[in-house]
Amino acid sequence: MQGIDSFILESLISQPAIKAWAIASIVIALKTFGVSFYTSSIRMRKHVYGSPEDYTLQKLEPKSNLDDEVERARRIHQNDLENGLPFVMVGLVYALTDPSTLGIWLCYGGFTLSRILHTIAYARGLMPHRTLAFMGGVLTTLWMAISSLGSILF
Amino acid sequence: MQGIDSFILESLISQPAIKAWAIASIVIALKTFGVSFYTSSIRMRKHVYGSPEDYTLQKLEPKSNLDDEVERARRIHQNDLENGLPFVMVGLVYALTDPSTLGIWLCYGGFTLSRILHTIAYARGLMPHRTLAFMGGVLTTLWMAISSLGSILF
Amino acid sequence: MQGIDSFILESLISQPAIKAWAIASIVIALKTFGVSFYTSSIRMRKHVYGSPEDYTLQKLEPKSNLDDEVERARRIHQNDLENGLPFVMVGLVYALTDPSTLGIWLCYGGFTLSRILHTIAYARGLMPHRTLAFMGGVLTTLWMAISSLGSILF
Repeated sequence: MQGIDSFILESLISQPAIKAWAIASIVIALKTFGVSFYTSSIRMRKHVYGSPEDYTLQKLEPKSNLDDEVERARRIHQNDLENGLPFVMVGLVYALTDPSTLGIWLCYGGFTLSRILHTIAYARGLMPHRTLAFMGGVLTTLWMAISSLGSILF
Repeated sequence: MQGIDSFILESLISQPAIKAWAIASIVIALKTFGVSFYTSSIRMRKHVYGSPEDYTLQKLEPKSNLDDEVERARRIHQNDLENGLPFVMVGLVYALTDPSTLGIWLCYGGFTLSRILHTIAYARGLMPHRTLAFMGGVLTTLWMAISSLGSILF
Repeated sequence: MQGIDSFILESLISQPAIKAWAIASIVIALKTFGVSFYTSSIRMRKHVYGSPEDYTLQKLEPKSNLDDEVERARRIHQNDLENGLPFVMVGLVYALTDPSTLGIWLCYGGFTLSRILHTIAYARGLMPHRTLAFMGGVLTTLWMAISSLGSILF
């Protein structure tokens, strides 16, 4: 619809690797929003907010903004940022190197699944499940990084 | 200038959706840097720093690094990271699905405007304006995510 | 291997600007993982963890999760997120504008080098080296943002 050149977009999005990268990115973004709403729901249930005006709006007295459950939700969110950013950095690069079907499934599928399991394990305080899920995300991202670097340099 | 294949870059960047994604990304990045400098300016004005060596450099005694204004600026910055990452994850994907002109304007324009208003509302402690602006950013990102997933899967 | 259209991926990744963006992204992602493991190694050496279950797993009593060295590592990581996200936002856009060879080297090389030096300076508490390295990352990103905006709009 955007002129004769738009075939380039269709051509890109029809690549299996680009498609898998796109779906993984969307699912991870949705999951991260889920964590965001999880935090908000705890804050509203327990009336623990981050700013004084949040209390004023609800005609409540400001109190300590430290709550174990809220802090746990924030650590989950922070971990999402810390692992989502490297994925964003190498995920598209890996797709551009035209990886094998096995690589596509293992890397994008493995990362997405690992991050979902990490959130569940962290929210429930399950160890060492949380660390194993974390390592799943790290290892798939590292593999994408090293494999891409090899494809580009050699 | 980079050989006969560089038409592919020109072709990509000339797509309206890619252009809009690019402009929105740049504006959001600049706005986020603005928040970074806003925090620095409060730190320097109030002499509240994050590390002992920052005090040493200015020949000052280290003191508590907790200051309401600095903490507010840091929450604004954190909110930018929490919402910027999902935007990065789905923003380019949405552009690759060759969206309609209306979708382009609403999603990239709406997200950019929402995030600018969110920063202003948060810095001034305005509620519920801050939450409304936050929801503007979340809803445009969610729409890009769901719309893209539909385009890719069906 | 992914059908007749995969030449589009090869064509993209063979562009010098895309290649440089890809390598810079990979190196920054690897460096950020390095910071993540640096934090973990301090936590394990000092037995300072973020969640109660981390202590339970090691049959230790939970104690204060505040430790100067851990907090410094976390500030390094946070700074990586705060500067990595704008880079992700403008780095690919800049590559799509088909920049000059000089621009490619200065921006992607300069950003990558600045961020590596920033981490080293921060970990060792070196000032003003840390601020200079920080500014190197900010200025290269700002240049990519403004130069890209110029290319797209005019």
